[in-house]
Amino acid sequence: MSGRIAHAGLAALRMDADHAAALIAPGMTVGMSGFTGAGYPKAVPLALATRISDAHERGEPFRLRVLTGASTAPELDGALARAGGIDFRLPYQSDPELRARINRGEIEYMDLHLGHVAQYALFGFLGRIDVAIIEATAILADGRLLPSTSIGNNKTWLDLADKVIVEVNQRQPLGLDGMHDIYYGTAMPPDRKPIPLLHPGDRIGEPYLRVDPAKIVAVVETDAPDRIGRFSPPDDVSKRIAAHLVEFFRHEIRVGRLSERLLPLQSGVGNIANAVLAGLREGGFRGLNAFTEVIQDGMLDLLADGTLEMASATSFSLSPEGVDEFVRNIERYRNRIVLRPQEMSNHGELIRRLGCIAMNGMVEADLYGNVNSTHVAGSSIINGIGGSGDFARNGFLSCFMTPSTAKGGAISAIVPMVSHVDHTEHDVAVVVTEQGLADLRGLSPKQRARAIIAHCVHPDYRPMLADYFERACRDSFGKHTPHLLPEALSWHQRYLNTGSMRA
Amino acid sequence: MSGRIAHAGLAALRMDADHAAALIAPGMTVGMSGFTGAGYPKAVPLALATRISDAHERGEPFRLRVLTGASTAPELDGALARAGGIDFRLPYQSDPELRARINRGEIEYMDLHLGHVAQYALFGFLGRIDVAIIEATAILADGRLLPSTSIGNNKTWLDLADKVIVEVNQRQPLGLDGMHDIYYGTAMPPDRKPIPLLHPGDRIGEPYLRVDPAKIVAVVETDAPDRIGRFSPPDDVSKRIAAHLVEFFRHEIRVGRLSERLLPLQSGVGNIANAVLAGLREGGFRGLNAFTEVIQDGMLDLLADGTLEMASATSFSLSPEGVDEFVRNIERYRNRIVLRPQEMSNHGELIRRLGCIAMNGMVEADLYGNVNSTHVAGSSIINGIGGSGDFARNGFLSCFMTPSTAKGGAISAIVPMVSHVDHTEHDVAVVVTEQGLADLRGLSPKQRARAIIAHCVHPDYRPMLADYFERACRDSFGKHTPHLLPEALSWHQRYLNTGSMRA
Repeated sequence: MSGRIAHAGLAALRMDADHAAALIAPGMTVGMSGFTGAGYPKAVPLALATRISDAHERGEPFRLRVLTGASTAPELDGALARAGGIDFRLPYQSDPELRARINRGEIEYMDLHLGHVAQYALFGFLGRIDVAIIEATAILADGRLLPSTSIGNNKTWLDLADKVIVEVNQRQPLGLDGMHDIYYGTAMPPDRKPIPLLHPGDRIGEPYLRVDPAKIVAVVETDAPDRIGRFSPPDDVSKRIAAHLVEFFRHEIRVGRLSERLLPLQSGVGNIANAVLAGLREGGFRGLNAFTEVIQDGMLDLLADGTLEMASATSFSLSPEGVDEFVRNIERYRNRIVLRPQEMSNHGELIRRLGCIAMNGMVEADLYGNVNSTHVAGSSIINGIGGSGDFARNGFLSCFMTPSTAKGGAISAIVPMVSHVDHTEHDVAVVVTEQGLADLRGLSPKQRARAIIAHCVHPDYRPMLADYFERACRDSFGKHTPHLLPEALSWHQRYLNTGSMRA
Repeated sequence: MSGRIAHAGLAALRMDADHAAALIAPGMTVGMSGFTGAGYPKAVPLALATRISDAHERGEPFRLRVLTGASTAPELDGALARAGGIDFRLPYQSDPELRARINRGEIEYMDLHLGHVAQYALFGFLGRIDVAIIEATAILADGRLLPSTSIGNNKTWLDLADKVIVEVNQRQPLGLDGMHDIYYGTAMPPDRKPIPLLHPGDRIGEPYLRVDPAKIVAVVETDAPDRIGRFSPPDDVSKRIAAHLVEFFRHEIRVGRLSERLLPLQSGVGNIANAVLAGLREGGFRGLNAFTEVIQDGMLDLLADGTLEMASATSFSLSPEGVDEFVRNIERYRNRIVLRPQEMSNHGELIRRLGCIAMNGMVEADLYGNVNSTHVAGSSIINGIGGSGDFARNGFLSCFMTPSTAKGGAISAIVPMVSHVDHTEHDVAVVVTEQGLADLRGLSPKQRARAIIAHCVHPDYRPMLADYFERACRDSFGKHTPHLLPEALSWHQRYLNTGSMRA
């Protein structure tokens, strides 16, 4: 196993996770690897959670600031949260235990565009990074790291942290070698240069992560899989959403605004996203590209059959079956997948240049096309904005998708006014539910409202929404974006009071 | 005067404004020059307004879709709105008559990031452009146009419109020749390349606007000044806002996050922006750069005395005195000012690469750092988002400034929840009022709320806001972004009901 640690000095730093965790002190800021449940450290955070629990039992405070790429897994966010060890967290999370504590007000969480994290750290806006804990597939003879199944912010944590702990996970396939592309041309303004990427598959950097071996204080060997659940096959609602979107793309091709090969796809994570990918395959699309954050099972399928020519991302998010397929056919995928730092996968400059088609899920949209991606009832966070803003603002097209209702119909995903805004009216081009698709491009607020009422809202809520809009058009203070302020958020409050948004 | 029309074929197309206006038919989409009251056509829109009024008197419908660079003047937006001739307008406006009609629901208005307009038109999202009406300083022998005091979207309207009407305004100084930089390297994705601009003063294009002479259907000679009012000297509140911001910059220099030369400044229009520029000069800053939208009087002063080395913008917005100073010393300014299409002045790729310091006014901010730049009471539009989103999202620092109260104290600019969101919590780094400055970088929502309450809110409203926050922290459904939905917008409704937000 130490064959994966080819640097003699670093091999000498091998220790168990407990000893590595002992190098981390209360109050530190720790930058961890991990993006969408892939490539996160498997052992040290668990040992750290134990260390923290022990300290708390002795009555000693022990909390950390935890920065990652995006979401991780129960062994990291779950364990540290349960131990009461997280003081502050950014930039994205999806762990139930962590989320519950954030929403109880016990943990401070900052929700940040995934494409902005690295530069904010570099600018000094996030404070000093004391320790980086980074999973790697192997350590090369010169000390560089062969990355594992995600890159996320690893380059940045390795560059900025005072000390580095590397977890070498022998479960990660060595066949990943050559799939990564780490761009080292970034700089602080005013010394920045254009990023020389012109196509999703371009390689503009190096396959390995640089790190000063003198900063490495521990190397921990692990043998554990990424923890990613199975995806359920697309349900009928997801398929209908996908069908509306594919039909829209067909229309855009007919009128000459898109070519048959579309433009690079960005696709969020989850069942609707997988359904859209499946819909493109079934719709006969070929030779497409993806410039996105995450490679899911659905994307592997499309790479396998030629629907997708090339996929660029910062992470895999594969089910156990997806991992098997990937490892079995890794040579087939090698030249068609590029993993980049999230600083690049989510870089506004690249997303705009390439003209990505952004397709993201959402919590709710309002009459005027404002989108809430993060909050329930304006106050309770779900996961975070992730990269949706990077792509929605900078892409060629920004599409937001959701079933028209949730909780068995008790919640309408189309409301008079969203309870939290993550994407403003200025950044939302297309809203899709299983009911239909509203094309908001080039429309004023009231024109958007009519399109959304006609196409997106569930029939059970359509009369309520149409009634609100009609009364707002009559009684609103201003008639540009008609609203009745005492009622604007009343659907959410009714849900909190009665368990349903229905009147 | 025809000395300004060096192309013989085009000189033959000279006609008066009435004849030119007669070329425009009901229902057309017209792309006009004009940005912040500069470089707009002076004669044809007025003639068009008369033509429209005459048609309406005959009972004939006559309405247009009017697209511009940004705001224009009474002779354009005011006259056409008063004639009832505008059906749809984008992307920015500030004319009182037009605004009133938008807010009465008579005119549809789409408020768009100024840096997105050109590409949306190119993508086909704004429909066909029938006619462009563009003010120029002169027409060259080969038919190219020497632009006037703004560029805005002129390149795009000239490229896309079926027909072109040029107004040659002899009041615009010929000395502008050489100040413009029109970049012709843009393309549709997937054929886009990096934009080769590395410093605010770089010239990457040509000094003249290309236009196919065969598309030009009329040339109208005018002799009229841009209509820009005088700026009042900075008042005490503006000076205090500026002082907080300058002190913050000094702090950032001390801790090493900014150099003495700062980074390229983007500065909104108006008295606070002018006060900040004056504060930088008085603070002894030297050798700064501006990469911004508009060159105001305050910026000329800084160029004159060396505070500013170079300024890049898309428009002048000078008072009559500023115009005199500019024309008198035009040779001194020539090499230190570059005017670009707004597609470039507001391009996210360039703003992020250069690391602009974004400083924009706002209507209101809320506890959590969400910013409303456009709406009163969530429904009534003031002007528009302009370029504030281009710079806030992509800049090195995004600062929003406002007096802490308006209407003699009846309105607090810091509220529990903004009534409209133009800049989300993810995009706002610094909030400044005359009360103080809240540095929101790296903070969770509740940490931001405490900073904003401590530093920004007016003392008259501080107890109310602190009380809301405290009760929300106790009673909110979720404690990540604590809110009491029935109260969240109650300050605005109280203002509508009673004329004051005070309880």
